[in-house]
Amino acid sequence: MNRYFVQQPLTLGETLTLPPSVAKHALTVLRGQVGDELELVGTAPQAYVATITGLDPATVQVTRALSGQPELPVAVTIVCGIGKGDKAEWITQKATELGVSQLVFYNATWGTARWAKDRAPKKLARLAAIAAGAAAQSHRTIIPQIVFIPELAALPLHDGEARLVAYEESAKAGETAVLLQTLQQAPRELVTVFGPEGGISPAELAWTAAHGFSNAGLGPRILRTETAPLYLLSAVSVVCELQGEAHA
Amino acid sequence: MNRYFVQQPLTLGETLTLPPSVAKHALTVLRGQVGDELELVGTAPQAYVATITGLDPATVQVTRALSGQPELPVAVTIVCGIGKGDKAEWITQKATELGVSQLVFYNATWGTARWAKDRAPKKLARLAAIAAGAAAQSHRTIIPQIVFIPELAALPLHDGEARLVAYEESAKAGETAVLLQTLQQAPRELVTVFGPEGGISPAELAWTAAHGFSNAGLGPRILRTETAPLYLLSAVSVVCELQGEAHA
Repeated sequence: MNRYFVQQPLTLGETLTLPPSVAKHALTVLRGQVGDELELVGTAPQAYVATITGLDPATVQVTRALSGQPELPVAVTIVCGIGKGDKAEWITQKATELGVSQLVFYNATWGTARWAKDRAPKKLARLAAIAAGAAAQSHRTIIPQIVFIPELAALPLHDGEARLVAYEESAKAGETAVLLQTLQQAPRELVTVFGPEGGISPAELAWTAAHGFSNAGLGPRILRTETAPLYLLSAVSVVCELQGEAHA
Repeated sequence: MNRYFVQQPLTLGETLTLPPSVAKHALTVLRGQVGDELELVGTAPQAYVATITGLDPATVQVTRALSGQPELPVAVTIVCGIGKGDKAEWITQKATELGVSQLVFYNATWGTARWAKDRAPKKLARLAAIAAGAAAQSHRTIIPQIVFIPELAALPLHDGEARLVAYEESAKAGETAVLLQTLQQAPRELVTVFGPEGGISPAELAWTAAHGFSNAGLGPRILRTETAPLYLLSAVSVVCELQGEAHA
């Protein structure tokens, strides 16, 4: 069943008019008929089944709430150095499928590409659309936030969050304990910084060290800058979701 | 340090002439000089450091063996339905970084694309080159094999391997135990079948069930056909590599 996000609160039993973009996809593209069902998520992170009750205008009735928790038990923020080409689009789509809460892109000292400040809003709008599409397709109940910061030192920090840097030199040195130790403490929030293709610079690494980030290796293979966040998110799922459930 | 695969056995202390493609990259692209070091992997899964001893012809001496084990403790075969566009390229690159041993592509009943038998060798040659590049970049000691089979039922099976199907309906139903149970038995080989975008067909699912494959969910989110193998490989790394090491 197709899932759509609508920007309004939803209540069980209510009838609502579908936003034009949703109506177009559900009725025109998929040829939905009165009586057909679709899934809606409103402004709260809860999915509902809704039944089509009218075609013009496109109306649905919210008929039941869906159980199941598709969100990771840890709110993960992925902080990525900006790279070349369509890497940001790609990371946004895949990280959304794998459960990321927030994606932050920064102009890295050793980055192979930079976003000019005045072009960032257009880039972010495109990434937000990709995140919305991926969130619906992967049956999530929130759309990750996408944020741009001009440099790593502008990263907003919150008390109580766990903080990691995915550090290639740690991976090369065989360091594998920090990630597990961090996840086993079951943090509610985890922020992980990834360097660009050129690597994280000494000044950026000094900034993270001064702000309580630990350097973590992500297994013994050297992962590309766009692959490492996917490993991290999968690891959070395995340890905090699959194994958390097995122990519960 | 850059890593290169050469198709010959290597022995500590020996001097060898670099193959033309390696010589071109190491000497022309990277401007290597006599005395500079590079990493070589020969026909055995062992990486060495070699020192450039001559430029024309390009010769190196194998100066020391590298410790560290970049290969997953489980030999993972990923079996993927063929999809549209460059998905096979993409899966090959990312799965190689994440440690896959073998990739098998099959024409799936509900696939959105098919490979004609006579075009498969050209496709495989391209994927093999991508795998070789990704294996070198991720500092692996083997290059994954890439195989094409015309249909899932042609998949070669081996005694003793663990067998899973990544099944979307299991994910939707909240099944999360099978993957963990399988990995905790520490199999030496794991074969996992992934459907194409259109999903795995009832006949294909019946074939896997008849051949000892278990249906496994990969967490509560619905992953795209090209994302699910990356989750599986990351899970193998976390459970069998990071956690295996923590318990060792």
